Amino acid sequence: CVCTQDKVLEFLNKMSAESGIADLTDPGLAEFLSESDALKVIRDKFHYPKAGSFPDVDASLVDPESDGIYLCGNSLGLMPKATERIMTEQLDKWSKLGVFGHLSGDIPWAHADELAVTEVGHLVGAKPEEIAVCNGLTINIHVLLSAFYKPTETRHKILLESKAFPSDHYAIESQIRLKGRNVEESMVCLEPRESEETLRTEDIIDYIEKHGDEIAVVFFSGIQYYTGQLFDIKNITEAGHRKGCLVGWDLAHAYCNVPLHLHWWDVDFACWCSYKYGCTGAGGIAGLFVHERFKNDKRDRMLGWWSHKMSSRFVMNNELDLDEGAAGYRISNPPIHLIVPLLGSLEVYRSVRLDDLRSRSCYLTGYLEYLVNTFFGVGSDKLATKITISIITPSDFHQRGCQLSLKFSVPIDLIYKELVKRGVAVDKRYPNVIRVAPVHLYNNYVDIRRFIQALIDSCLAVENNV
Amino acid sequence: CVCTQDKVLEFLNKMSAESGIADLTDPGLAEFLSESDALKVIRDKFHYPKAGSFPDVDASLVDPESDGIYLCGNSLGLMPKATERIMTEQLDKWSKLGVFGHLSGDIPWAHADELAVTEVGHLVGAKPEEIAVCNGLTINIHVLLSAFYKPTETRHKILLESKAFPSDHYAIESQIRLKGRNVEESMVCLEPRESEETLRTEDIIDYIEKHGDEIAVVFFSGIQYYTGQLFDIKNITEAGHRKGCLVGWDLAHAYCNVPLHLHWWDVDFACWCSYKYGCTGAGGIAGLFVHERFKNDKRDRMLGWWSHKMSSRFVMNNELDLDEGAAGYRISNPPIHLIVPLLGSLEVYRSVRLDDLRSRSCYLTGYLEYLVNTFFGVGSDKLATKITISIITPSDFHQRGCQLSLKFSVPIDLIYKELVKRGVAVDKRYPNVIRVAPVHLYNNYVDIRRFIQALIDSCLAVENNV
Ligand SMILES: Cc1ncc(COP(=O)(O)O)c(C=O)c1O
Ligand SMILES: Cc1ncc(COP(=O)(O)O)c(C=O)c1O
Repeated sequence: CVCTQDKVLEFLNKMSAESGIADLTDPGLAEFLSESDALKVIRDKFHYPKAGSFPDVDASLVDPESDGIYLCGNSLGLMPKATERIMTEQLDKWSKLGVFGHLSGDIPWAHADELAVTEVGHLVGAKPEEIAVCNGLTINIHVLLSAFYKPTETRHKILLESKAFPSDHYAIESQIRLKGRNVEESMVCLEPRESEETLRTEDIIDYIEKHGDEIAVVFFSGIQYYTGQLFDIKNITEAGHRKGCLVGWDLAHAYCNVPLHLHWWDVDFACWCSYKYGCTGAGGIAGLFVHERFKNDKRDRMLGWWSHKMSSRFVMNNELDLDEGAAGYRISNPPIHLIVPLLGSLEVYRSVRLDDLRSRSCYLTGYLEYLVNTFFGVGSDKLATKITISIITPSDFHQRGCQLSLKFSVPIDLIYKELVKRGVAVDKRYPNVIRVAPVHLYNNYVDIRRFIQALIDSCLAVENNV
Repeated sequence: CVCTQDKVLEFLNKMSAESGIADLTDPGLAEFLSESDALKVIRDKFHYPKAGSFPDVDASLVDPESDGIYLCGNSLGLMPKATERIMTEQLDKWSKLGVFGHLSGDIPWAHADELAVTEVGHLVGAKPEEIAVCNGLTINIHVLLSAFYKPTETRHKILLESKAFPSDHYAIESQIRLKGRNVEESMVCLEPRESEETLRTEDIIDYIEKHGDEIAVVFFSGIQYYTGQLFDIKNITEAGHRKGCLVGWDLAHAYCNVPLHLHWWDVDFACWCSYKYGCTGAGGIAGLFVHERFKNDKRDRMLGWWSHKMSSRFVMNNELDLDEGAAGYRISNPPIHLIVPLLGSLEVYRSVRLDDLRSRSCYLTGYLEYLVNTFFGVGSDKLATKITISIITPSDFHQRGCQLSLKFSVPIDLIYKELVKRGVAVDKRYPNVIRVAPVHLYNNYVDIRRFIQALIDSCLAVENNV
């Protein structure tokens, strides 16, 4: 992505001139932007919900028949229409074929996961052999750490962020204990500088350079769930490698959000869930990446019959013939009803170029940033309310995906409730942060402008109460 | 179950008298039995497939419009109609509510697994707090062994069957290695006596009594996948406990097949898949059991945010507040599209008494045994072909579930192909075993009698080639 906020403003000004709508914050301009958007059709590939179907919506504040203001794809993506079709097909197949479905049809269940690895590889910048789709995300953290975290007396630490997602934090803690070491000695949680919200790349790299000899594994999130910061995966990985560490990534918030080149960035291992920007539904199937260089190493790991090469898997003589690459990290047979939504989402991704999506994403989020700063930014001359907002997420486009984390000058509980009444779906983190994710697949400029209006109205509604 | 083959014969004779059909092998008697069966209606709760929808069926050998001869529920159960309905509802909910679905509706996704634990507990004889539904089966073996297998210098062995299912074998091997021990020393695979197919309970107990001091964990399957042998879970568990071992069970083939009383048998831990007799579809969600006595022990295990108590899970301060009981062994958030089929299957199980199902199962399998022995048993005076069959599965009803494993006097590849042409779905294990499972939920006497006819015809068709 070569986007900057200047380019976004340039674009808004250009469109303003084209449309004859002078005010960049004019809702009419949002309409014009949405209409002119070459990728607007992707929204039709999804079931985009109506405001009236959300719980706790107040019909006097928002037309129930209007589209919901769904900016919560960072938590759960919307449903691709393709998913419904494929699910029906596969249930039908089950009802007609029973066990024969394992090996017949377009989607033979026993190999259904393998149908996805090439395209999932494309989404994360990896070769098919480097990809497996299986399990839940935190399970995959365990699968990978139990294989790649081999502490020794001198090199036993895992380096992570101090505010890692809780599941990652607990997984790492427990892997350290299961490997017979103690957390106090072996778990290093890096904190941002005092009074800063996000970690600086230079500080991470600096830490690795100073202490890397003791670090067995560096394990960061690609995008920080709370701040929305996109870490410099390539350079942090390189820094780790210079000191002989293995470097792994949790891409929960990065998968299908930002361009990834795991293979070419030389990442050792990675994993992700697919229910956010991957749009596979609650608890959708996770994925894992293991770099090609480990293709034939037989490191100790958690094994199952699905780690065994297909060619001899059903001989069942209990002599393991370990599959190569990421496939050898699979354990259980694939769950078809989780593979279906993955295939549904891949059908959508097949219809667009990832670069175009990323570029669209930068403009959408840039537009959101512009509006937030205009109406809520400290020092703005257009302040809509007394409540102000600072954006925690880095303003540098290379350091973020589609999500912006908005930090309010007041507690958000009442504001959040008002938003919900107005048909807004966003993610709250008490006491005072709301995360807003315009998703490049199904959101548009109108959603964003309507969100801003709802936010202004919500803040005005509670202003006197806070 | 108080059934014996004598009681089955008594029953067949009684029904023969009632119907006026003298020959117990008469297909007409099978029709009469199916018709008189009080539980026959359960079949209607399933999509029972037509022969013509199976691959490789020969319409000159079987009417494509007739019911398929589906005796393969030991591999993959058929689809409950309820599953289709609930899946449609949940997809619809996703399309309308997006992320709000986590906490709203009849099935709030974030707690969907918890809706199942009471009824799953009922199926395995456990309290709700002892049950979690999550992951794949082999993953759960890892989850449980990584928590319960804590080898010490003197007690480091795992005792299992020599022909354990490969996934269990590999999981145990790898857990031993991951715990820093070697397989040669710590893995003990118990073999049946020479020239016997199944392990004797007395030999297992004897081994435990002699060597139990070195055994950390006894881990057997409840029902052996290949032989169909049901182990004496209660007494083996007791024997293990007398010697201070922990005793765990893989109930893949026992879950929803035979009565289980895990809590009252004092089993330490157990796990199962649900896609066989649980009818949840390929790769359906697995379950695990942890005995109440471990409810508050905080043994080291693989952790994730779902191991954290719900009440404070979303505070997200990275201080683990471990959930109690089996819930504290969960790791990832629940996958709704796997929970749906579980709820579908529970809807079926809710409509019947388990004891009635078990009794029905004994009669169905006893009838199959009677027919196999009559037409294929060495020494029978009604032999249908030159090919004979011995049944590996124990004839003692207390030592088996619904499955019979048929060992042929010849290789089965050609016979199997002929069966498939005739609309039969059964499970083959080369060179010479076919596993046949009349499932108490959806199979009936007619399926069994038609299977026997197809088997006779298949054997006759290949007799001259073998
Ligand atoms: C005894 C046993 N263990 C494990 C498995 C496979 O487990 P998973 O569901 O993890 O693929 C099976 C599947 O048939 C089984 O019968
Ligand atoms: C960074 C990160 N890790 C882990 C998880 C949760 O993982 P699981 O899918 O295993 O419940 C999330 C979910 O939001 C996440 O954002």
